[in-house]
Amino acid sequence: MYQRLPAAVALPADAAQVAAILKICHRLQVPVVTRGAGTGLSGGALPHEDGVLMVTAKMRDIVRIDPLARTAVVQPGVRNLAVSDAAARYGLFYPPDPSSQVACTIGGNVAENSGGVRCLKYGLTVHNVVALRCLTAAGEEFEVSAADAGYDLLALLHGSEGMLAVVLEATVALAALPEARATMLCAFDSYQAGGDAIAAIVAAGVVPAGLEMMDGFAVEVVEEFLGLGYPKDAALVLICETDGLAEDARGQLAQVERICAGFGARDVRIAADDAERERMWRGRKAALPAVGRRATDYYCIDGTIPRHELGATLEKISELSKKHGLPCANVFHAGDGNLHPLIMFHAGDEDEARRARDFGSEILAACVAAGGTVTGEHGVGVEKLNEMCLQFKEEELAMFHGVKEAFDPAGLLNPGKAIPTLQRCAEFGMMHVHDGQLAHPELERF
Amino acid sequence: MYQRLPAAVALPADAAQVAAILKICHRLQVPVVTRGAGTGLSGGALPHEDGVLMVTAKMRDIVRIDPLARTAVVQPGVRNLAVSDAAARYGLFYPPDPSSQVACTIGGNVAENSGGVRCLKYGLTVHNVVALRCLTAAGEEFEVSAADAGYDLLALLHGSEGMLAVVLEATVALAALPEARATMLCAFDSYQAGGDAIAAIVAAGVVPAGLEMMDGFAVEVVEEFLGLGYPKDAALVLICETDGLAEDARGQLAQVERICAGFGARDVRIAADDAERERMWRGRKAALPAVGRRATDYYCIDGTIPRHELGATLEKISELSKKHGLPCANVFHAGDGNLHPLIMFHAGDEDEARRARDFGSEILAACVAAGGTVTGEHGVGVEKLNEMCLQFKEEELAMFHGVKEAFDPAGLLNPGKAIPTLQRCAEFGMMHVHDGQLAHPELERF
Ligand SMILES: Cc1cc2nc3c(=O)[nH]c(=O)nc-3n(C[C@H](O)[C@H](O)[C@H](O)COP(=O)(O)OP(=O)(O)OC[C@H]3O[C@@H](n4cnc5c(N)ncnc54)[C@H](O)[C@@H]3O)c2cc1C
Ligand SMILES: Cc1cc2nc3c(=O)[nH]c(=O)nc-3n(C[C@H](O)[C@H](O)[C@H](O)COP(=O)(O)OP(=O)(O)OC[C@H]3O[C@@H](n4cnc5c(N)ncnc54)[C@H](O)[C@@H]3O)c2cc1C
Repeated sequence: MYQRLPAAVALPADAAQVAAILKICHRLQVPVVTRGAGTGLSGGALPHEDGVLMVTAKMRDIVRIDPLARTAVVQPGVRNLAVSDAAARYGLFYPPDPSSQVACTIGGNVAENSGGVRCLKYGLTVHNVVALRCLTAAGEEFEVSAADAGYDLLALLHGSEGMLAVVLEATVALAALPEARATMLCAFDSYQAGGDAIAAIVAAGVVPAGLEMMDGFAVEVVEEFLGLGYPKDAALVLICETDGLAEDARGQLAQVERICAGFGARDVRIAADDAERERMWRGRKAALPAVGRRATDYYCIDGTIPRHELGATLEKISELSKKHGLPCANVFHAGDGNLHPLIMFHAGDEDEARRARDFGSEILAACVAAGGTVTGEHGVGVEKLNEMCLQFKEEELAMFHGVKEAFDPAGLLNPGKAIPTLQRCAEFGMMHVHDGQLAHPELERF
Repeated sequence: MYQRLPAAVALPADAAQVAAILKICHRLQVPVVTRGAGTGLSGGALPHEDGVLMVTAKMRDIVRIDPLARTAVVQPGVRNLAVSDAAARYGLFYPPDPSSQVACTIGGNVAENSGGVRCLKYGLTVHNVVALRCLTAAGEEFEVSAADAGYDLLALLHGSEGMLAVVLEATVALAALPEARATMLCAFDSYQAGGDAIAAIVAAGVVPAGLEMMDGFAVEVVEEFLGLGYPKDAALVLICETDGLAEDARGQLAQVERICAGFGARDVRIAADDAERERMWRGRKAALPAVGRRATDYYCIDGTIPRHELGATLEKISELSKKHGLPCANVFHAGDGNLHPLIMFHAGDEDEARRARDFGSEILAACVAAGGTVTGEHGVGVEKLNEMCLQFKEEELAMFHGVKEAFDPAGLLNPGKAIPTLQRCAEFGMMHVHDGQLAHPELERF
């Protein structure tokens, strides 16, 4: 959706080089955009045309693992999955697991406060990072830690989309690999039944380590790609995983099974071994690539809704799909009420691109109408700047700008992202607010 | 330790009155200190002598409980325990449980980001609050929520000790009352054995809903007060509680029991019923009052250490107790490595008061030397301002001041607390840093 060339690209190899780049840019007042793997889904790492794009691809060292303290110290360009791979020999793993985990970096995860399948049980990135070593826009080093007194700057940096500081090193918390994981897959014949089952599972006090859904169309697309044998002709397929001590994981899954049965679940399968378990997950994890294979372009939406609204919202999305004449596959973190409709279209076709944007915008409006929000875990980036104007009052935006000012008074780090200027909101307000609807951000040049 | 009279006291009855008070004070540039129950242990609610002390005691309404969304909306003066009491009829409870929970308020809990016995499993206050309605120092209302995009102001307000905004209303998350709780009490004959058992329990991946310890002297003091039948002549008494589905709670506790046996635990008791369970907890929860009954004054220290340093640090504290000639009882959140030594002294005796301060200071130095920090959950307040100078560099303190500036440019909310001025640090630095030791804050007039 967004493309832009930077004035220059820098590939620092170590902390000293990052500091040198920042100091030079600060002296020359040149904007700096930090980039991890570029998997962000709201355009946060989009370059600035007069600025330097600083990519962390060379900073991939796992500096240290301390199995007793259960922490790993990693450079910002380390891939999410590489942390768990390295920790496995100690019986440990790094819980947050965005579906992009083979590629996305810890620096990007911190900047987006990323979630994933396991975050229902294990929390978001912010709940799994204990300390950060950072550089200010001026290239000055500072450290923040969960144990610090004073205002919680560690939490403040999470989700700040590279606008407050550059992450040089993260100390992440590792969790013990569970003794057992129990995994179930089943099908529902209506959105309502599947949605209600999710609400009932969470209401019963079960906290699965994964509670994910795909709609029938997503299943069709994935099956075409991988042929995993997911149930056919279902409205929704649920994958639920529990973990912990063996008895406990099985006990909790049995409870989930009973609840699902009450909502008419069919084709219930419990993974007999690790191979089957991985097969169950493979389709869910590969849903975005599968859609990317089928459609020339797709637009991944990121809205949240209360869990008991799942069924009704999916109905609404399927109506909107007909209205706009664009196919839409749904894969989602059901347990968190976090939807990811994937709208398929041709970016080359101007009319389709416009329809895709309108469709996305109406999905987000439906999420808000159902009592949810316009972003779950993919951040604001450039994509949702206008929605920010609708969500926040002028005084609240002024607080955001005040915080930015405290860290980066010259405004050199990732300018134009995440927090709209008051002027932008004023212009946007004049243009869009009067129709009383969530309007979609234009794909404008900044 | 700290006493000061405010110029005036205000007892607002509702949000409109709070706003009116703030607006008047803002116009007249008069400082405002918000106060909940005054149970804070670092002097955060200490009045300003030229300011208004605004007490939330009249704002005690539980506005609404939503059992489906599992949230409660409460006014700031609602007592912590009152939330769980009101939620019980829906099978829900509010997890954070500071030992002061019969008295302390949700507003105070947010401002201190309080923990408690259950926070090892359920998290701190910040992990259990989903939204806040607040007023700025100028009396302007704003809302922050966990679902917000933009910088994480909700997290930033937690632990900000009343310096950024006044909390008007909190929406807190409720958890399902566990099907079962399993509780065990046992004794260890050495600090080392008890401390190592704690480290081993957590390392084994068990996450108890409570993992608390008391040393032999604390047990003696509590027994004298309540006569609960805790094991005598032990170095340490452990209380461990697991919760969840019945099988799971029992299974986890059995694992804890096995681990403790390996470290020589004796007098192992498992609570047979709720009455016995409550008896086990009563002594731990009443430890501070029990000490308060025995000593004319006591000074509660709040340091953290890595769990595997528990044994050695307790040895060190007992040496220091001899050195300073003051008795010290230890009760602590062992699972979090959060120590609360209770130094007994006579505040009227100047020499004892000085020794108590030196003793406390040396305990904190020992915590830092062991790889820990100078505050676990009781905040900075006025007590630890000087330690903040030692922990943070000038640039880092400047960031804190920048954040304060973004919320309260006139500096009217709780001035002189939590974040030291650069000037104070400079003076303190000249006086104390050269001896290379953590120095204790003087009890000075501000
Ligand atoms: C197939 C697919 C599946 C996905 N699944 C999920 C999911 O399940 N959950 C989820 O939350 N997200 C998901 N995402 C979104 C994305 O992967 C995450 O936002 C991820 O954290 C981005 O990491 P990155 O390294 O690619 O960052 P980039 O995209 O390179 O950058 C993202 C932001 O981080 C900033 N940044 C990067 N490195 C640093 C640094 N060192 N210091 C400061 N700022 C920095 C950038 O400036 C930018 O604002 C998915 C994306 C794809 C393509
Ligand atoms: C016996 C005892 C046991 C304790 N056990 C624990 C424990 O286990 N864990 C723990 O973490 N703490 C514990 N504490 C410390 C204390 O109870 C907590 O810090 C508690 O959260 C303070 O709440 P309060 O209502 O008494 O706040 P106060 O002491 O009145 O105020 C504390 C701070 O909060 C600010 N504040 C109060 N209300 C508001 C508001 N509405 N808006 C903005 N700021 C506000 C004040 O300005 C002040 O800075 C204990 C204290 C005692 C006396």
